[in-house]
Amino acid sequence: MSKVFVIAQGGGPTAVINQTVAGAALAARERFPGSKILGARHGVRGVAGDDYVDLTGLSETDLMRFANTPNSGLGSTRDKPDDAYCKRVLDGLDRAGASAFIYIGGNDTSGTLAVLDAAAGDHIHFIHAPKTIDNDLVENDHTPGFMSAALFVANAFLSVDLDFRAMRGVYIGIVMGRHAGFLTAAAAAWRRDDSDGPHLIYVPEVPFTETQLMEDIRKTVDRHGRCVVAMSEGVQTADHKPLAESLIPAHLHERDDHGNLQLSGGDLGLALQVAIKEDLPGVRARVDTFGYLPRGFLGTVSETDRQESFAIGRFAVENSEAGSGSVAQQFVDGRVTLKMVPLDAVAAKTKTMPADFLTPAGNHLTETGLAYFHRLLPPRPDAWTPFV
Amino acid sequence: MSKVFVIAQGGGPTAVINQTVAGAALAARERFPGSKILGARHGVRGVAGDDYVDLTGLSETDLMRFANTPNSGLGSTRDKPDDAYCKRVLDGLDRAGASAFIYIGGNDTSGTLAVLDAAAGDHIHFIHAPKTIDNDLVENDHTPGFMSAALFVANAFLSVDLDFRAMRGVYIGIVMGRHAGFLTAAAAAWRRDDSDGPHLIYVPEVPFTETQLMEDIRKTVDRHGRCVVAMSEGVQTADHKPLAESLIPAHLHERDDHGNLQLSGGDLGLALQVAIKEDLPGVRARVDTFGYLPRGFLGTVSETDRQESFAIGRFAVENSEAGSGSVAQQFVDGRVTLKMVPLDAVAAKTKTMPADFLTPAGNHLTETGLAYFHRLLPPRPDAWTPFV
Repeated sequence: MSKVFVIAQGGGPTAVINQTVAGAALAARERFPGSKILGARHGVRGVAGDDYVDLTGLSETDLMRFANTPNSGLGSTRDKPDDAYCKRVLDGLDRAGASAFIYIGGNDTSGTLAVLDAAAGDHIHFIHAPKTIDNDLVENDHTPGFMSAALFVANAFLSVDLDFRAMRGVYIGIVMGRHAGFLTAAAAAWRRDDSDGPHLIYVPEVPFTETQLMEDIRKTVDRHGRCVVAMSEGVQTADHKPLAESLIPAHLHERDDHGNLQLSGGDLGLALQVAIKEDLPGVRARVDTFGYLPRGFLGTVSETDRQESFAIGRFAVENSEAGSGSVAQQFVDGRVTLKMVPLDAVAAKTKTMPADFLTPAGNHLTETGLAYFHRLLPPRPDAWTPFV
Repeated sequence: MSKVFVIAQGGGPTAVINQTVAGAALAARERFPGSKILGARHGVRGVAGDDYVDLTGLSETDLMRFANTPNSGLGSTRDKPDDAYCKRVLDGLDRAGASAFIYIGGNDTSGTLAVLDAAAGDHIHFIHAPKTIDNDLVENDHTPGFMSAALFVANAFLSVDLDFRAMRGVYIGIVMGRHAGFLTAAAAAWRRDDSDGPHLIYVPEVPFTETQLMEDIRKTVDRHGRCVVAMSEGVQTADHKPLAESLIPAHLHERDDHGNLQLSGGDLGLALQVAIKEDLPGVRARVDTFGYLPRGFLGTVSETDRQESFAIGRFAVENSEAGSGSVAQQFVDGRVTLKMVPLDAVAAKTKTMPADFLTPAGNHLTETGLAYFHRLLPPRPDAWTPFV
């Protein structure tokens, strides 16, 4: 029976999110010949406004070029539909004659689908296809988009550490991550021993104090003559408030529809740079804000990430007849396996780093943590240890 | 006749600076068999302190692995020798029995060599081998290290522009560059038309006002629904002072031995982010500081840059018998050519972007400017134009 598939993208883009669109579109053509395949522009906003790209007849060549383009090529949104908005989305899906709505996104996207699913009849199935560079979805071993962003971060810290061997000082790279420190911790994936940077990692899972940071940096400089630090922009003080929040003037606070404060590594970075200069006068100290660079960078897209994201789109379509649900990428018996789980098993939940990934002090990876990143990333490039 | 070559690296690292060391070392072995090849640690500091890595017997495999390692693997320095320091360096060279001192660096490095050359006898030749991601050396068409850094910047802006097509807003990426805007302008190398970002570039060559920036951004947002900006951290106000200087509290000003103020994109970035939020309330606005990321990033090393940097090391050794001088990489009759020029032709001078690279408003590349970057960089990756 021919069907109508509506596909959309929500939340922050990744380097491989279009692979999932392509995987879903190609599977729909193969499994359900004669189906119509509509890509909604800007997520649920496009569905509510009948704003579609017709992917039905797009050549496979063009679809694969689209797949290899980083960042959400259908457009994205952070809209969180209320009851009235939900009605407009459901009406839109009915006008399109949708049999399945495949929405690619993180836990906010899964939450939106759970709400839509509860309000709709049984004639439409709602399928959540995971993606997020934050790697923070429960039920998933790792999420599409994470590997590529992690590869950028690992490359960046390997390079910066070589830079700070050449001319010594203190470097802090601030990496995206609101609640989960996976992306920041990926900075340490290619360390070989204590002398390699990053020498310290600070993640949202561990309460942060500036006093401790300064003490850690001083000790590292004493020992290695330099200190390279990877820090999540979402590091939190003991009261569970983002450190950045206390540094941003209140009248500039900006929240999205999901209530998330828009963090900016810049504010955090500047405050840290001033603190280091005052605490360690005369020491070369630099803070860079990676910001959006890791999430869609063309130069470091992981081939495995590409393939997995494509496979998830295919799996979403292949399992769309059985009912609504979320595609989960799990790791069972030494291999990556896909399965469907209920939408609300993923919605509005956040996976943080397991406690055994971090040492008791919270600023280094354990062997268990390292092993996880080694499994996901390619081996450290064959760089000669420099002579300094 | 066997000789002693002393090789050192000065100033900021690049992704390919070790290629020049390897090229020089291999040429010395081939052309002057039995020669001793010493790599000084941390530039002139290592020479003054007899701190050397003996490269004479290093296997070609290890030397090429070292060549492919980004950032100054011998260590670097920003020391600017005064008379007493010069004497210590010259004494060090004499102790080592040096017949030639090959110093890889920018115009400050060339200046140091000119001073040493004037103070030394004729028994040592001083050869400057160029490198700088700033691309600001006179007598050179482009400098080793620039292509790789430019490739990072072009990739970053292509990716970020796709990101801001997906979710609209204003993005400013702040790129290193104190006096010359080449690296910032490389952001526009892969633009195809007006709708592609970066929509605006701001470089130190053109007087900057925040009022003009805000007007330019508003116009671009009105026209394209988004605005992606590439800005040099060294942008200057009409009085030729770096904008960042007025934003950094005076007591935190930090200058190196060459009198250069240590700029930090972070201060500039934060000020701009606040300004945009106040001027365009409700608009998604993000500022990222690229900082050190472009200069040694492993994921975007240019193959041509590798080869040219290696060739420059080789040329430096091959021409070391004729006297002191600076290797210049020129573009003659459609091809890159190396020649020796006097040290003080390069020392303490800065090449900025030619006036015909920029439109009269100063915030776009002309066809002439674009052609230059097209000649240096690989073609734009085959990315599908997204559907938004």
